[in-house]
Amino acid sequence: MKPALGVDFGGTAVKIGLVNERGRVLREDGFPTARARGVDGWMNEVAAALDRMGIPEKAIQSELSGIGVGVPGFVDFQRGFIHDLTNVPGWTAVRLATVMRSRFGLPVVVDNDCNAMALGECKYGAGRRYRHAVFLTLGTGVGGGIVLDGRLWRGAYSMAGEIGHVPIDLHGVRTSTGRGGLEEYVGNAQIVKRARRMLRHRRSILPTMVDGHLRELTPRHLAEAAQAGDEVAREVFDYMADCLATALAGVTYLLQPEAFIIGGGVAAAGDVLFEPLRRHLNERLSPFFAKLIRVEPAALGNRGGMIGAAALVLKGG
Amino acid sequence: MKPALGVDFGGTAVKIGLVNERGRVLREDGFPTARARGVDGWMNEVAAALDRMGIPEKAIQSELSGIGVGVPGFVDFQRGFIHDLTNVPGWTAVRLATVMRSRFGLPVVVDNDCNAMALGECKYGAGRRYRHAVFLTLGTGVGGGIVLDGRLWRGAYSMAGEIGHVPIDLHGVRTSTGRGGLEEYVGNAQIVKRARRMLRHRRSILPTMVDGHLRELTPRHLAEAAQAGDEVAREVFDYMADCLATALAGVTYLLQPEAFIIGGGVAAAGDVLFEPLRRHLNERLSPFFAKLIRVEPAALGNRGGMIGAAALVLKGG
Repeated sequence: MKPALGVDFGGTAVKIGLVNERGRVLREDGFPTARARGVDGWMNEVAAALDRMGIPEKAIQSELSGIGVGVPGFVDFQRGFIHDLTNVPGWTAVRLATVMRSRFGLPVVVDNDCNAMALGECKYGAGRRYRHAVFLTLGTGVGGGIVLDGRLWRGAYSMAGEIGHVPIDLHGVRTSTGRGGLEEYVGNAQIVKRARRMLRHRRSILPTMVDGHLRELTPRHLAEAAQAGDEVAREVFDYMADCLATALAGVTYLLQPEAFIIGGGVAAAGDVLFEPLRRHLNERLSPFFAKLIRVEPAALGNRGGMIGAAALVLKGG
Repeated sequence: MKPALGVDFGGTAVKIGLVNERGRVLREDGFPTARARGVDGWMNEVAAALDRMGIPEKAIQSELSGIGVGVPGFVDFQRGFIHDLTNVPGWTAVRLATVMRSRFGLPVVVDNDCNAMALGECKYGAGRRYRHAVFLTLGTGVGGGIVLDGRLWRGAYSMAGEIGHVPIDLHGVRTSTGRGGLEEYVGNAQIVKRARRMLRHRRSILPTMVDGHLRELTPRHLAEAAQAGDEVAREVFDYMADCLATALAGVTYLLQPEAFIIGGGVAAAGDVLFEPLRRHLNERLSPFFAKLIRVEPAALGNRGGMIGAAALVLKGG
C-alpha cells in the first residue's frame, strides 16, 4: 500500500505527514493555521506543503493512497462534513472530504482529531497490542476516542467519545454541556486554579518557579514540581487522577476495554499522574474489573495527530 | 428456523418459554428455583417443564433450534461458563453451556440475564427500530446491556454493561464496587429509604397507603402515590430520575446510542419516572446530543427474560 497523507488540523498549526503502512512518518511539513484563507486557501497550503515534501500536485495521485484529516471540532464522519471547528473561525458547514477529493483526486477521510489520535495510538502506538481501547487526551479540555474490535466507535450520529463531558458529580458545576463533566475538574485551567488556591496557605516550590507570578503557572510547572516532590503539586495531581479515575471507572464498567491510553500535555507528567491514576482506578473498581484493566501513556507524542489522520486512510477508520 | 427455548434463570423462579423467530412466546412453563438440586437436578426440571409443554426429551433436537439461558450473575459468554450467581447458592464455576449441550444435544448459549433482556428488547421489544441501544433494568440493583450495531457489546472479558456501578458522584458512598455507583442512588431500597426520610417532616398519602407501617413501603406504593399527585412521591421520582439522567448523560456522551430502553419493576411507574427522566437528561446534555437521544420504556414485561434468552439463539447473541 502506498503511504497516506495525514493532516493534523490544529487551532494554531496544521501539521502534515507522509505516513507509511507501518505508521512511520517518512516526511513532514506544515503551516500556521492563520496563514490559510478559506477552504481553498487551506488546500493551497496543503498542496504547497506537499510540494515542499517532494510531491508536486501532479504526482499526488501516483504517490499517495489517500488523505486523512483530523479536525478540532464536530464532524459527520460518513459525509466528511465539518459542522463547526471550535477555535478556527470560518470553518462552519464545510464538505471537506468532497472538496478535497475533487481537488486532489484521491480518497479523503475526515474525522474529529481525537478519533484520529485514538486510532493512531491503537494501530501504531501504545494501543498496538489491544483490540479494545479508550483514548483520552488531556489539555484545555479532555478529548476522547473509543476503539472497539479494532475500529473507531463513532456512535449513532458520529459524535461518540466525548469523554470530557462525562459527568463525575451529579451536583457539579453547570455548563452548556451538562453538569459536573470531567473536563471541569481536570482541564488545564482547572488544575492550575486548584494549585493557586492551595498556594494561599501552603508552602511549595511553585511560586519561586514562576518568580512569584502565579498567573504564569502552567501544568508543566506543576509536573516539574511534583516530580521534585513538592507536596502541593503532588496533591493537585492526586486529585486530578482521582477525578479521571471516576470517569474511567464508569467507562470500564460500561465497556470493559482492555486499556486506556492517555495522551496530551499533562500526560507527559508521567508517574506523578499515572501512579495515582492507577491506584484510584483500582479503588473505584471491583477486583474483577480492576485486575484486567491497563492504563498506558500515549506513545506517539505530538506526531500522534498526523499519524492518526493517516491511519484513517491506512487502517480504514 | 425452528423455535428456541428461552430460559430465564431468576433467583426465585426459572421461567421457560418456547419462542419463535419473530419473538412470540408459543408456550411457557417454569419451576421455583429452590426446587432444583444442583446442576443435574436443574436440568431435570428444565426437561420436565419441556415435557409439560409438549416436548418430551427425545423430541428436543427435532423441535428446537437451540437453548438460550439468561442467568443472574457473572458469565464468561464465550465458554458459557458461570463464575458465580449472586443469589443462587451452589452455582459457582459451572460450565453450563457444555453440560447442557451434552445432555440435550443442541446449541446452548449462556449469558448474563441483563444482556439477554437487552437483546430481547432490541430485537423484539421497545428497541426494534434501533441498531444501537442501551438497556437498563431497575430493581434491587440496576442491570444493563449494550447493543451496538445490532449485537451485544460484552467487552474485552465478557463483563461489560454494568451500568449499575457507573459512578455518578466522585464523593459518593464507598462500596465493594467503587464509589458513588448509580445503584446506590436508584436501587429499590435506596428510593424507599429516601421516601421514609422525607416522611418524617412532610405530609403525604404514603403512610395511609401502608396503614402507618412505613417498613412495608415499596416502590410500587411510591409509583401509585406519585400517579395520584403526591408531592413526596413525585420528589422521590424526580431525584431518582436525575440520578439516572446523570449516568445516562455519561453513556450518551461516550457511546451516543440511539435510545435507552428502561425496564424493571420501577419502570412500570410510567410517566412519573419517564417525564422527569427525559427532562433531566436534556438538562445534562448539550442540545446536539439531547435532541437525538430517545428514552423508551421496555415493552416485553416479565417475559423479557425468556424472550431475550431465546434471542441469544435466534439472533446470534
